[in-house]
Amino acid sequence: MSKTIDFQTDPSKYRHWRVEYEGEVARLIMDVDEAGGLFDGYELKLNSYDLGVDIELSDIVQRMRFEHPEVKVVVMQSGKEKVFCAGANIRMLGGAAHAHKVNFCKFTNETRNTYEAAEADSGQKYIAAVKGACAGGGYELALACNYIMLTNDSASSVALPEVPLLAVLPGTGGLTRVTDKRKVRRDRADVFCSIEEGVKGQRAKDWRLVDEVVANSKFDEVVAERAQEFAAQSSKADGLTGIALKPLQRSFAEDGSVTYSLVEVAMDRDAGRATLTIKGPDSEAPADADALQAEGSDTYMLRLARELDDAILHLRLNERNLGLIVFATQGDPERVQAHEDLLLAHADHWLANEILKYWKRVLKRIDMTSRSLVALVEHGSCYTGVLAELLWAVDRSYMMLEEFEGDNRHMATVTLSDSNFGTYPMGNDLSRLETRFLGEPEMVEKARAQIGEALEAEDADELGLVTYALDDIDWEDEVRQFMEERASFSPDAMTGMEANLRFAGPETMETRIFGRLTAWQNWIFQRPNAVGEDGALQRYGTGMRGQYDMERV
Amino acid sequence: MSKTIDFQTDPSKYRHWRVEYEGEVARLIMDVDEAGGLFDGYELKLNSYDLGVDIELSDIVQRMRFEHPEVKVVVMQSGKEKVFCAGANIRMLGGAAHAHKVNFCKFTNETRNTYEAAEADSGQKYIAAVKGACAGGGYELALACNYIMLTNDSASSVALPEVPLLAVLPGTGGLTRVTDKRKVRRDRADVFCSIEEGVKGQRAKDWRLVDEVVANSKFDEVVAERAQEFAAQSSKADGLTGIALKPLQRSFAEDGSVTYSLVEVAMDRDAGRATLTIKGPDSEAPADADALQAEGSDTYMLRLARELDDAILHLRLNERNLGLIVFATQGDPERVQAHEDLLLAHADHWLANEILKYWKRVLKRIDMTSRSLVALVEHGSCYTGVLAELLWAVDRSYMMLEEFEGDNRHMATVTLSDSNFGTYPMGNDLSRLETRFLGEPEMVEKARAQIGEALEAEDADELGLVTYALDDIDWEDEVRQFMEERASFSPDAMTGMEANLRFAGPETMETRIFGRLTAWQNWIFQRPNAVGEDGALQRYGTGMRGQYDMERV
Repeated sequence: MSKTIDFQTDPSKYRHWRVEYEGEVARLIMDVDEAGGLFDGYELKLNSYDLGVDIELSDIVQRMRFEHPEVKVVVMQSGKEKVFCAGANIRMLGGAAHAHKVNFCKFTNETRNTYEAAEADSGQKYIAAVKGACAGGGYELALACNYIMLTNDSASSVALPEVPLLAVLPGTGGLTRVTDKRKVRRDRADVFCSIEEGVKGQRAKDWRLVDEVVANSKFDEVVAERAQEFAAQSSKADGLTGIALKPLQRSFAEDGSVTYSLVEVAMDRDAGRATLTIKGPDSEAPADADALQAEGSDTYMLRLARELDDAILHLRLNERNLGLIVFATQGDPERVQAHEDLLLAHADHWLANEILKYWKRVLKRIDMTSRSLVALVEHGSCYTGVLAELLWAVDRSYMMLEEFEGDNRHMATVTLSDSNFGTYPMGNDLSRLETRFLGEPEMVEKARAQIGEALEAEDADELGLVTYALDDIDWEDEVRQFMEERASFSPDAMTGMEANLRFAGPETMETRIFGRLTAWQNWIFQRPNAVGEDGALQRYGTGMRGQYDMERV
Repeated sequence: MSKTIDFQTDPSKYRHWRVEYEGEVARLIMDVDEAGGLFDGYELKLNSYDLGVDIELSDIVQRMRFEHPEVKVVVMQSGKEKVFCAGANIRMLGGAAHAHKVNFCKFTNETRNTYEAAEADSGQKYIAAVKGACAGGGYELALACNYIMLTNDSASSVALPEVPLLAVLPGTGGLTRVTDKRKVRRDRADVFCSIEEGVKGQRAKDWRLVDEVVANSKFDEVVAERAQEFAAQSSKADGLTGIALKPLQRSFAEDGSVTYSLVEVAMDRDAGRATLTIKGPDSEAPADADALQAEGSDTYMLRLARELDDAILHLRLNERNLGLIVFATQGDPERVQAHEDLLLAHADHWLANEILKYWKRVLKRIDMTSRSLVALVEHGSCYTGVLAELLWAVDRSYMMLEEFEGDNRHMATVTLSDSNFGTYPMGNDLSRLETRFLGEPEMVEKARAQIGEALEAEDADELGLVTYALDDIDWEDEVRQFMEERASFSPDAMTGMEANLRFAGPETMETRIFGRLTAWQNWIFQRPNAVGEDGALQRYGTGMRGQYDMERV
């Protein structure tokens, strides 16, 4: 599984999903092409999915927000008879390397979180309309919807059979949403997660596993009614017109470097790092919301978010030996601020709102990226507002102090905006500054008092906004030493350390999925009982159950 | 490492710690005997520790609460020159099986939590008086104290060098206490956890790693002052007299069964399970607090807690192939309640308070036990108050419904007491009933209305207090089927599932240590970069660093 994975797609290329738009309601139909697996060696039977299927879903969810703001309710359903979705493809999982399994789960989790949040973020509510078997990752697709409807027939059930069948967890949020979102009583959850055949009909409702059970003969009708009801209740404005998400400008050089219109990713494979440079705006900010809409997906803030998102995903999946990502920016800070200010001033305009919410997701994607992250605040940079968030998304930062010989770029500064105080919350629902200053909340207020000021290194350091402020004499050595040191550490230890240090303070369902559930799943993904030659994943489909070492650890 | 580990010890057997009592202040001196390792193959140099060292510490902390209630401040310090504590012994870790590593960490974490909570639970405050190198598990010992003092000399520092040196995490709460308790700024935490040599002097204070830095020449004096100050501020009553914790009555049969005075543990190795039967009181409840104190460690509630605690630890470490623990009780429910009522009525008496707080810890130890847990509510049982908590600590429960042919024991009942509504909170700070009914908080109130009623199966089921109520016809088959099914599952999948389903709702520092931090550490404990032949743990001490596969997962 070493082919390059491309996260860019568009409706003309879909093989596994189709969408039917009917005014305020869209039907999102899963109809997986058995022969359309991303890799060889498995067939996507029974609406089972692999990363390729999820890349399409992620694209649809994104386009729904930008291209179809008129949609208020999305009904997720199956295009197959008798099966809603059988979950992640087991042969694919059985054959995949550990790192692929882990990154596959992370991406699918991010996609689930994205459509789950669509109701709160932009008034698009997802209904799962479950007919047929809805098992494992299939039920996890439904769990991330805002409302689950189950038809009442002998073939339709919801199930999490991973533990008994496969010796792994329902790791795409399944266990966490059962406890934290559905709030299923713990002993019932234990029973539910232990039975292969799942739970049907009224019992599924009584146990809080679904929201509504409907007689089979009336199912389609009641689903349509419910969709109309929810559409009528939506807070979303009527009759919005979307923008087209045009293909990204992107080119790959022979050495693997990637150039987008606003992002450059340069690889230093010997040193084990990628440098991701963000450019400031190449145009003035749009004058108003109409101008923003007219610019569409070319507008700086959206174009940059899409390019950055793609670059991060590319590094995660396709450049796994680059353990350090260096963030840099170059451009006019005031122009960056002008572009962000336009969005903040028009946050009640649907498109401005969508762009800000997308930035929230992209920044969370960075938080969740298991690479060491560092930001360099060099002369000529533009860390302001949304781009300043990068300074607290990374593990540490270095800022140029005073003039550097022969460097005539503008002095390095950091500029805070209102957006740094709540517009882009982390998974723990706090702003990055609140998380940073958990022990010294007064520092958040000190920072707030400096909104709009272009802070040079001494002030930024004083305010705790950067880790190190270094002058011309120390800069090169210190930065180099850090990078070399980082490249010498065990990547696994770094992953574990970052997963703990980055998420201080309160936990949410989201942080629990990525922290607790994922960590246990990753542990199990290393255990012979699951992945060994005689483990359950390898033996699945052979008619033999996994052979287990019964020692408890 | 297959020898049987005994968790019972007493001061006459200590090899690694000594305690000096000076009225309200006790000095707890770590002075590890290099040759006193629990297993062969390593020397406990530089005050490094293994499970045996921690079993002594656990015993001391427990005796401090019961035998020395006059103590208000405990000063933890080193008996060695130039080193406070070097942390867990690396050769021990390198040679230990995965299951031993995991259980070692769990037990040490529980011990840290116990003394950390001693201030809130019973007014015993722990000061870490750090002189010399305080690294890794050594700093984690200090982090769990309520106040950390560091001397200001060139040899004294605090450090978490696990990541750079050993490719594992500071997993005994280290990372979590750095973020959640000390609330260290995240980029500083990143720096701190990346440098082998640690942080000294004023910088340690500025970075919130210690509470106070004191000149070396005045250190002992200021520590003594601080101890007196804290003792004067303590909420604890003056001049209390303790009770002696007598040796447990315990005998092992040839088949490994264990018999205590109130607890029997029967092993069925073919079926992979242990049945733990708790007996009701063998005497009337003490008449008042004086009578309670006179009974000392013989009193039912304390004797049972100690026996149960020892049984659970024995099963965890020494019976790792028994994946299912079956809880049963037999006895007079009213008598159980009378014993608990005496404690609840005198909760302001130091000994009653200590016994209740100990039950809180024992029940948490059960919550954290990675075995499948089931409770059988049979006729003749005594699930009332504190013992009813077992019903919600386990993964599921089965209760006998109506009369069983030929069974003339009293009818199975469950009786709630006030204690089920807050006396024994889980790690998440909620009661077990609140956690159970997260989705239906009104059920907690319904249960409260039934306090004192001996609820038979139909009512207990209706109130959601048990999973299944089964009559004579179904009981045997259903219970047997469940046990057989459970024994057929992968133990790793069960461990992961239970770690997610048992801890619904809010997270605390404690749940984050056992959930997030431990899960990542367990994952790392499976990774070749840490534990492989060329991994860091194996190579430690050879002068060669670990050789790492640099792929990020």
